Amino acid sequence: MTKFLFYMFMMQMACEVTPSVLDPLFQYIDGNQDKYVQRLKKWVAIESESSNSQSWKEVEKMLNVTAGQIRDLGGSVELASVGSQEMPSGESIPLPPVILAEFKKDPTKPTLCVYGHVDVQPAKKEDGWVTDPYNLTEVNGNLYGRGATDNKGPVLAWLHAVETYQALKQEIPVNIKFIIEGMEEVGSDGLETLIRQRNESFFSDVDYIVISDNVWVSRKPALTYGTRGNCYFCVEVEGPKLDLHSGVFGGSVHEPMTDLIALLGSLIEPSGRILIPGINEAVASLTEEEKKLYKGIEFDLEEQKKDMGIPRFLHDSKEEILMSRWRYPSLSIHGIEGDFSDPGLKTVIPRKVIGKFSIRQVPNMDPPVVERQVKEYLQGIFDKHKSPNKLKITMIVGARPWVADLMDPQYVAGRRAIKTVFRVDPDMIREGSTIPIAQTFQEVTGKSVMMLPIGGNDDAEHSQNEKISRFVF
Amino acid sequence: MTKFLFYMFMMQMACEVTPSVLDPLFQYIDGNQDKYVQRLKKWVAIESESSNSQSWKEVEKMLNVTAGQIRDLGGSVELASVGSQEMPSGESIPLPPVILAEFKKDPTKPTLCVYGHVDVQPAKKEDGWVTDPYNLTEVNGNLYGRGATDNKGPVLAWLHAVETYQALKQEIPVNIKFIIEGMEEVGSDGLETLIRQRNESFFSDVDYIVISDNVWVSRKPALTYGTRGNCYFCVEVEGPKLDLHSGVFGGSVHEPMTDLIALLGSLIEPSGRILIPGINEAVASLTEEEKKLYKGIEFDLEEQKKDMGIPRFLHDSKEEILMSRWRYPSLSIHGIEGDFSDPGLKTVIPRKVIGKFSIRQVPNMDPPVVERQVKEYLQGIFDKHKSPNKLKITMIVGARPWVADLMDPQYVAGRRAIKTVFRVDPDMIREGSTIPIAQTFQEVTGKSVMMLPIGGNDDAEHSQNEKISRFVF
Repeated sequence: MTKFLFYMFMMQMACEVTPSVLDPLFQYIDGNQDKYVQRLKKWVAIESESSNSQSWKEVEKMLNVTAGQIRDLGGSVELASVGSQEMPSGESIPLPPVILAEFKKDPTKPTLCVYGHVDVQPAKKEDGWVTDPYNLTEVNGNLYGRGATDNKGPVLAWLHAVETYQALKQEIPVNIKFIIEGMEEVGSDGLETLIRQRNESFFSDVDYIVISDNVWVSRKPALTYGTRGNCYFCVEVEGPKLDLHSGVFGGSVHEPMTDLIALLGSLIEPSGRILIPGINEAVASLTEEEKKLYKGIEFDLEEQKKDMGIPRFLHDSKEEILMSRWRYPSLSIHGIEGDFSDPGLKTVIPRKVIGKFSIRQVPNMDPPVVERQVKEYLQGIFDKHKSPNKLKITMIVGARPWVADLMDPQYVAGRRAIKTVFRVDPDMIREGSTIPIAQTFQEVTGKSVMMLPIGGNDDAEHSQNEKISRFVF
Repeated sequence: MTKFLFYMFMMQMACEVTPSVLDPLFQYIDGNQDKYVQRLKKWVAIESESSNSQSWKEVEKMLNVTAGQIRDLGGSVELASVGSQEMPSGESIPLPPVILAEFKKDPTKPTLCVYGHVDVQPAKKEDGWVTDPYNLTEVNGNLYGRGATDNKGPVLAWLHAVETYQALKQEIPVNIKFIIEGMEEVGSDGLETLIRQRNESFFSDVDYIVISDNVWVSRKPALTYGTRGNCYFCVEVEGPKLDLHSGVFGGSVHEPMTDLIALLGSLIEPSGRILIPGINEAVASLTEEEKKLYKGIEFDLEEQKKDMGIPRFLHDSKEEILMSRWRYPSLSIHGIEGDFSDPGLKTVIPRKVIGKFSIRQVPNMDPPVVERQVKEYLQGIFDKHKSPNKLKITMIVGARPWVADLMDPQYVAGRRAIKTVFRVDPDMIREGSTIPIAQTFQEVTGKSVMMLPIGGNDDAEHSQNEKISRFVF
């Protein structure tokens, strides 16, 4: 169906579509789905985790496979270098390249550039996956595997839409370009620079940029007009030069874990209230018009709670909950590196611990300002504790939020495509998570940017048992 | 030298020793040290980590090797079963057995029972070991390897002391027994029950129990007359049934990490003050006599700070620092299981996290009372937060503190042995860490218990680059 959606979307951008032309398309797509699923299985099998530089070889392998697929469809591909990353060790490692691809161009048609990524979040069977995360497995029409929905499935679906046009010997109604990266899950390192470098070349003839890298908020189709940004912080507290035995030394030394827990505990209340001065004050006020958008959105609180296994949310109403995810900042503490995190017990005073937390950004927050607010606040608290340990606060990601204009022609085409394919008006939604590239595309190129998600809210992106359903793929 | 110390100690327990008999002993011990070091190398190579049940096979292998060594010396060995442990999965796994060994008995001599353990703390090269932790490596007269000082080296040294007597065809002046376990590092599961069961049999003819499982407080020899106990807690906060993406859901759910950090942050101040009501109040008051013991102890603050790489301790004076380690409770937060603890970044809301901390026990604290105090306190704080997440607090170790009578004949013999071998009066010290078995031996058997440590405070037990020096081994 998604190939069909993309197909319709491209058609709608160029001209109106009459229902009579649709039947052969339906048939072709249905008849070839197994082939498409097998291709996704091969993609999922490549463990392209970008969070650890040791698996960047797999990310590069995945990018090469993607490039090969585009070339098979007659596209021309450049694997653009985006520089290197300095490791904590001081070593410098080349970043995975970025795919810039295009197909034969007709200057009378509008040009659509599709963005996607083929790196994935880490996944381990023992984290609670029912199936092997890197072996795409079908259960009841759902295709389970890391990257199935985020974002290998959608990237492939776009390629399959192109393949469908070619198989039916139909002319593609728009010129099409692809930009596919392998570092999205860790902040798209180097991509912004590349877009700036190619703004006057690759992007100069692009009219519309479309991103299919998120999901609906329910099982009702939706279009996404905003994303939250993200500021990701590492708070390192370093003490003794060796781990110490807590029995031998406990009570006599300033323990880095005690210092760190006090710092992390000062960030947010269990009620969800962020305690860093300036964060809540910066948030854009809610307009009446914006408020109305939330009213009609399909969002079943009870079903969500059941799916997530929680008895209640932090807020009571649908509107409050959606706003807390989309248009207000949030702060999550992800974990601590360097502490004792294995099963079992160990009586250790860890010598150096690194707390990791992130703050989702919304208009009108600004990452450099947030960075200063966080650093000043935590340093002030640390100073009060008079600890001789060393504190180092680093913002390793600083991604801005993004909001689009709903009246843009691309959104009009998207709405009509969804209505044609799914026979329903899409919910106009925002995304709580960060696809920093949306904001970057809009800011750098000045082109129209739209997010066209596929897949329901139960696709478990970034979680155990991630999947895409056969129905949308 | 340690074989010699043990030799002297056994002699002193039975009779006075004249200096003239010492020379051949010195010579024999010096001449055989390389053989002893090679034996230790074989023991260290066995990765007998008890903290993870998956390596209990290695613990059992280590116990079998130890048993073989004792049999080679003519001892009789029983590998006593101590039941099984229920895993979190519900599965029940047999615990590693305990060695009960004895040598031919002379009813006219006193009987000494030596306790030791052959399991070790976890160790990984990447944690900061300069050498492979499981390949004993000599650098400048120091033997580096996990278990070198804690406790494989000392166990072997006792066996070598027996071997020395046999090699020189001297009669051992005391009857000797061994009790060697493989679960010390995780709380000596099953051992207390075994001691109770064998109190009327194996222990009935024992006069003295000696433990060599700690180190001096400096590089000056010492005898240890007390240990802190330990209550080890797991605080589990469980929320959604899946890990969640912090972008998608952040701001709308009660995050288990936020709840847990608030709980851990309420336990202790960065100043070292424990905040759980009742803990500090239970501590036995300091007597003038006890205070005097601390005056003469050799403890170089400046050297310690340099060795540990810290600019200052929590307290200023030698006496305060030693007391904070030995006779006052301490609380250390060891880590969190289930969070994101790898290098790199991950934008996850972990579904279930388990905080681990421990409180060192001193007279007159009582683990069941401490368990109740901790549970009530944390539950009270959690209730105030009105979180729908599930809280489970478990005390997985509850070991009592121990203090001995310094006037006991065993301590007199120990002091004289140290004076003879090292030509110095030992410091009378306590141990901040927990050897729960000392307290158990004293309570169950009613026998005299002494701790006779070998090795300086720079042996890095429980830490990276653990070692024993050739001089003491």
